[in-house]
Amino acid sequence: MQAPFTTLSTFQKTLGTAAGPDADAIAAAAARNAQLTKPPGALGRLEDLALWYAGWRGTPRPQITGPQVLVFAGNHGVCAQGVSAFPPEVTVQMVANFKQGGAAINQLSRTFGAQMDVHALDLDRPTADFTQAPAMSEEDCVAALQTGWTAVDPAADLLVTGEMGIGNTTSAAALAMALYGGEAADWTGRGTGVDDSGLARKIAVVEAGVALHATDDPLEVLRCLGGRELAAMAGAIAAARHHGIPVILDGFICSAAAAVLAKAQEGALDHAVAGHLSAEGGHGRLLAALGKEPLLNLGLRLGEGSGAALAIGVLKGAIACHSDMATFAEAGVTDG
Amino acid sequence: MQAPFTTLSTFQKTLGTAAGPDADAIAAAAARNAQLTKPPGALGRLEDLALWYAGWRGTPRPQITGPQVLVFAGNHGVCAQGVSAFPPEVTVQMVANFKQGGAAINQLSRTFGAQMDVHALDLDRPTADFTQAPAMSEEDCVAALQTGWTAVDPAADLLVTGEMGIGNTTSAAALAMALYGGEAADWTGRGTGVDDSGLARKIAVVEAGVALHATDDPLEVLRCLGGRELAAMAGAIAAARHHGIPVILDGFICSAAAAVLAKAQEGALDHAVAGHLSAEGGHGRLLAALGKEPLLNLGLRLGEGSGAALAIGVLKGAIACHSDMATFAEAGVTDG
Repeated sequence: MQAPFTTLSTFQKTLGTAAGPDADAIAAAAARNAQLTKPPGALGRLEDLALWYAGWRGTPRPQITGPQVLVFAGNHGVCAQGVSAFPPEVTVQMVANFKQGGAAINQLSRTFGAQMDVHALDLDRPTADFTQAPAMSEEDCVAALQTGWTAVDPAADLLVTGEMGIGNTTSAAALAMALYGGEAADWTGRGTGVDDSGLARKIAVVEAGVALHATDDPLEVLRCLGGRELAAMAGAIAAARHHGIPVILDGFICSAAAAVLAKAQEGALDHAVAGHLSAEGGHGRLLAALGKEPLLNLGLRLGEGSGAALAIGVLKGAIACHSDMATFAEAGVTDG
Repeated sequence: MQAPFTTLSTFQKTLGTAAGPDADAIAAAAARNAQLTKPPGALGRLEDLALWYAGWRGTPRPQITGPQVLVFAGNHGVCAQGVSAFPPEVTVQMVANFKQGGAAINQLSRTFGAQMDVHALDLDRPTADFTQAPAMSEEDCVAALQTGWTAVDPAADLLVTGEMGIGNTTSAAALAMALYGGEAADWTGRGTGVDDSGLARKIAVVEAGVALHATDDPLEVLRCLGGRELAAMAGAIAAARHHGIPVILDGFICSAAAAVLAKAQEGALDHAVAGHLSAEGGHGRLLAALGKEPLLNLGLRLGEGSGAALAIGVLKGAIACHSDMATFAEAGVTDG
């Protein structure tokens, strides 16, 4: 499906036209939930997840049969500043690993029955070093948003977006700081594992980038400080909303890309839950800014969509209980 | 398989003969983990889980192909004290619901590919009201332990034990207080949903029961304050250790049954992880006493093994990553 935008301004307009959840489906799902053979509220957050999912799927008794995991890869000019523990060629090597089925996200996608697609975005043409110039031209940024948008399978019933891109925790930290303020140190973590001097370099780089590209326009923030894989994730999350596909957000980088949408359009992430709390420094702060409570907290900091993919299992469990449990009447159980 | 004990004293001896994990398998799994295509430690707790599981399975590259979920049901004489929001006949009704596939645990077992077996223990013969007399005779307690032991499929590669028994949060609170001390109010929660006066009654009942049956012998605590489904869970968890089957503990009631083993024999729960933190009052305190960090915290308080079954997904994800990811050498990825 072609993306319904060709500029950042028409992408912004597209965000404004997104529909909300189906209130009737939520009400019917809540009525069903009250009749299931369990004490009221005893499934805790699984019950909230079921109602939320039912609303976005527009049916009181939904199923999850076709989750999609999208992994986007991009390269970052800011790597020239020495912000990563791994060299940039690892991005293309890991794309090959994704395609051969050898990465963590391949195993997690398989475990939870998700279709997984990988999109490498111009890896031989890194974004500009954002301490020197905007990371992307408008054309490049729109093309990446479009890649993300069109990568979404309209027939999927759940979406996870993940990424690979040496240097992209630096880009994500710059996005978060530009969108929410605070100090560079609040948002900057160790990524794949930089040492103390590497972390100090990252903080200085984030600070310099945000200072150079001061703007209140979230899509301009994305263009100047983001990366192709971050823009692609934003495009995919927006497309999922358009198609009525609920989203599980991954860690810090995915959340930073999503935050661009949340800042650009109020409620743009209502169809998304936070899959996990990453161990990457700024993620807890970022989720708090987004008003999202993570489903899992297991110390992951890998990216690739791994934490969100793990949370597919939680959501599948929630929907299986909601849609397939017997009611008190069906089972002949006395309702306390 | 026949249980290798016929008295509480021979069950205690059986606990003392259990083997530990395979140190060579753990070392080989750790070596493999260090070569997988991810930054060191980036899969967080999933990496710890994989090494733990490898050790108990005795192989550096294990698979999970046959999880078993066991649900035990029992009735409690202490219900005469008005400690539950549901009447005791709900236990037998829910057993029928388990057998017909309508309960939450049926859906979760199916979602995570687990075989599920239900064992109803003498539902027409409730335990004695422990405020008046020991809940069980030694014969009854041993029979329940044996039911649990023999219910474990020696070919399973993961075990979840769950329960159903109106009144059993009261029994579990009494076990926890008798084993770990503190006040009755520290351990007593609202179960299926008692109101304030019901909660006050439960606290008084727990206090009275613990005072009546003062003993330092954990198996005597189980006999006097427990219930058949709690004893069966303890027997099953002990049998899993015997067969080298790792266990995921469920919520408050399962943890109280497991705590009897931990108190009876140091290290008796080393083959077990805590699946989740239940919303039932005393569970956090009980997990802290057991030294277990829960994998999930989603506000569940249903029992049946539901929280542990949900955590099967997390463990499957961990093992899939550990055993099926490519190494740096296999994938041709530069190791940072």
